[in-house]
Amino acid sequence: MKEKLDELKARLLEINDLDSAASVLSWDQNTYMPPGGAAARGRQMGTLARISHEKATDPNLGRLLDELMADVNSLDPDSDDACLIQVAHRDYQRAVMVPSDFIGRFYAHMAASFQSWTEARPESNFNKVLPFLEKTLEFSRDYANFFPGYEHIADPLIANADYGMKATRVRAIFQALRARLVPLVQAITSCPPIDSSFLQNHFPEKDQIHFGEMVIKAMGYDFNRGRQDKAPHPFTTKFANDDVRITTRVNENDLGDALFSTIHEAGHAFYELGVNPAFDGLPIGQGTSAGIHESQSRLWENIIGRSKPFWSHFYPLLVDLFPNQLHGISLDQFYKAINKVERSLIRVDADEVTYNLHVMLRFDLELDLLEGKLKVKDLPEAWRERFKQDIGIVPDSDRLGVLQDVHWYAGTIGGSFQGYTLGNILSAQFYAEALKAHPSIEDKIAAGNFQT
Amino acid sequence: MKEKLDELKARLLEINDLDSAASVLSWDQNTYMPPGGAAARGRQMGTLARISHEKATDPNLGRLLDELMADVNSLDPDSDDACLIQVAHRDYQRAVMVPSDFIGRFYAHMAASFQSWTEARPESNFNKVLPFLEKTLEFSRDYANFFPGYEHIADPLIANADYGMKATRVRAIFQALRARLVPLVQAITSCPPIDSSFLQNHFPEKDQIHFGEMVIKAMGYDFNRGRQDKAPHPFTTKFANDDVRITTRVNENDLGDALFSTIHEAGHAFYELGVNPAFDGLPIGQGTSAGIHESQSRLWENIIGRSKPFWSHFYPLLVDLFPNQLHGISLDQFYKAINKVERSLIRVDADEVTYNLHVMLRFDLELDLLEGKLKVKDLPEAWRERFKQDIGIVPDSDRLGVLQDVHWYAGTIGGSFQGYTLGNILSAQFYAEALKAHPSIEDKIAAGNFQT
Repeated sequence: MKEKLDELKARLLEINDLDSAASVLSWDQNTYMPPGGAAARGRQMGTLARISHEKATDPNLGRLLDELMADVNSLDPDSDDACLIQVAHRDYQRAVMVPSDFIGRFYAHMAASFQSWTEARPESNFNKVLPFLEKTLEFSRDYANFFPGYEHIADPLIANADYGMKATRVRAIFQALRARLVPLVQAITSCPPIDSSFLQNHFPEKDQIHFGEMVIKAMGYDFNRGRQDKAPHPFTTKFANDDVRITTRVNENDLGDALFSTIHEAGHAFYELGVNPAFDGLPIGQGTSAGIHESQSRLWENIIGRSKPFWSHFYPLLVDLFPNQLHGISLDQFYKAINKVERSLIRVDADEVTYNLHVMLRFDLELDLLEGKLKVKDLPEAWRERFKQDIGIVPDSDRLGVLQDVHWYAGTIGGSFQGYTLGNILSAQFYAEALKAHPSIEDKIAAGNFQT
Repeated sequence: MKEKLDELKARLLEINDLDSAASVLSWDQNTYMPPGGAAARGRQMGTLARISHEKATDPNLGRLLDELMADVNSLDPDSDDACLIQVAHRDYQRAVMVPSDFIGRFYAHMAASFQSWTEARPESNFNKVLPFLEKTLEFSRDYANFFPGYEHIADPLIANADYGMKATRVRAIFQALRARLVPLVQAITSCPPIDSSFLQNHFPEKDQIHFGEMVIKAMGYDFNRGRQDKAPHPFTTKFANDDVRITTRVNENDLGDALFSTIHEAGHAFYELGVNPAFDGLPIGQGTSAGIHESQSRLWENIIGRSKPFWSHFYPLLVDLFPNQLHGISLDQFYKAINKVERSLIRVDADEVTYNLHVMLRFDLELDLLEGKLKVKDLPEAWRERFKQDIGIVPDSDRLGVLQDVHWYAGTIGGSFQGYTLGNILSAQFYAEALKAHPSIEDKIAAGNFQT
């Protein structure tokens, strides 16, 4: 068995190397690549994805996994090796359902679609992405149909991110949550508004980046094992256990934008940086699902990063950096401002109460598109209608509406959004348990100590 | 034939995509990668190189090329297709001589060796790289021995960079040049020295980068098709016809360092950016040899970038940017200073007269190492001895001696240096021809017009 396990690990590492290389190419595309690089980059990423998929579906890998599965009961079921064999076997079974050339074509399409989005968004020009998005919907349906026997057409797409979750289950959780959230938002927004205007003073980019990096360093982010760059849409990417990078975007007229996105992405990074180094490059060395991943980012961003203890430590440092912009603003005023609930247009800037409404809107629109109830060309209008119902306002441009998130323009339609709200729910559950186990956590945070 | 040619191009593009991905990973390693990423990066680049080599040596590609070669005489011998078939056939014949697993091991070794060099150079610690360099010499000899029947063991390594050149021929050219250069350096350096001390004032990094980028923009570098980043050792890298990037390094106490390296790398980039887009990703779409490539970078750096017409245009702009540092310095003083000939330690900073002595020293040491006349552990001492003979001074630390160039620490020993001096010789020949064809070039340069 030892020999077979070694062969398995070598094969999985090779696949991981190809995928990590593709991640570097994607990171570069989002951070530094000049516009001229786009066309070839799409082809290059398509080639890597195709070769990776060929390796991941190699019949010799399938036979090896069958042999290992036949013996897996001889192992302790909780052992790393038993888990590795089972996860790799499941991944293989799923991978062989999708033809390699489909993957190659889809990746090439995604790169072109992403490029069109980077042009369409600033112009607020939905028509520019429309033909790409229509093709993406076709690709997404075709993908789902490689997994016949699903209960809902979104299920195979959801399984890529949150394996085990089904559309009907997610819908039920979301409906229950939405039924409470919509009136809650109405109740809060009918109260006199909190003044948060001082967050919209001018905060120079350099200082914002400096402060955000100081905060995540204090939280434990190790710049020898990662870095932060600017990107149009913030993300975390892992090239290896000791190279997990984050990105942010800066709005010089909004102090919260970059800061909370930096803390959010650092939360994702902590999860990956905390993986056992022995699992580096193996399928058990990755986050277990999008929801679990998001529970870590949202935990740090919201439950910790918007808490009173956190800011009782960091606020004096922030005032030192921006003495004019925050002149006369007390900790309490600041704390209220960063937790202000309001009807807003942008998901990633939304407060904790409305955020899930933004997510559930996208999830439901995805299901409608996949079910064929909604046409891609009618998506902007459907977006506005649902937005009006849930949030109570309407974006006056697609840039602030359907074009705001990268997901549909660089991935499938279906499967990309449910994890955000599942993660929010999980983050509250994890934190409650953490406080039970370590009641002094908040005192330590207030002292700038994030060790526990 | 059309079908076979299409298949050939598809296969060659796939290989190119893998190689371009590896170039992105290497660029990242040299510019932005955090230290923690090094180990996995070595493995990733090894995997890409191995798969690329497998594809480049696929027997089906060999058969396809044999079939195309059988028909190649039916094509116009100067046609692009005929050239493509012949170059691809030659590359294939050379590639099949080297086993795939050798390439994988060698690339992994190079990444580790490079990492050790990045630590060893600032510490001036040759012992840190010694075991890596010894292994590199073994790898280099093993590589050469995959090509039995060579005249000199360096020939197969030289062929990778300057196909058609042989060690004995290069040695003869270099000996003739050296015989004239050594006394020339002695004669010049016995004259009263030119004052260039003002070049060592403090020039802030930001302003240096700004000026360098302004100069190469004027020369025609298109930042939509490339970019400039900082790296410990400047290089040019091509990810696609429309994405050719350069790097530079800045010394705030030396105005010439970054500026001439930027112009030099832009010269390399112009060559690649000027390739027919129809050849993108094909072996005929790359520079033809290291020597020809270097002829372009040295042409821009030295023949144009250090010329009086060039600076009669740019010097006033430079003085505007650095009015205090260049206060009271005339164009003539500046022109003399940037062309000052002196005994110096660093190849990339050396003037036009001594530069080739730096190169030939390395070339001869490579031959001695490969021939077994010189042991790696004795290399620092051999470096100092030869340096004393040719340049007349001795580096007092290996950082300024044998550790200064990346080449031996991230590539083979043998084949990496001869191109620099061959390129210098060619650049003078090309420029002489260009002036014959367009006698007004220098007037136009003086007017800031680089079109011709």
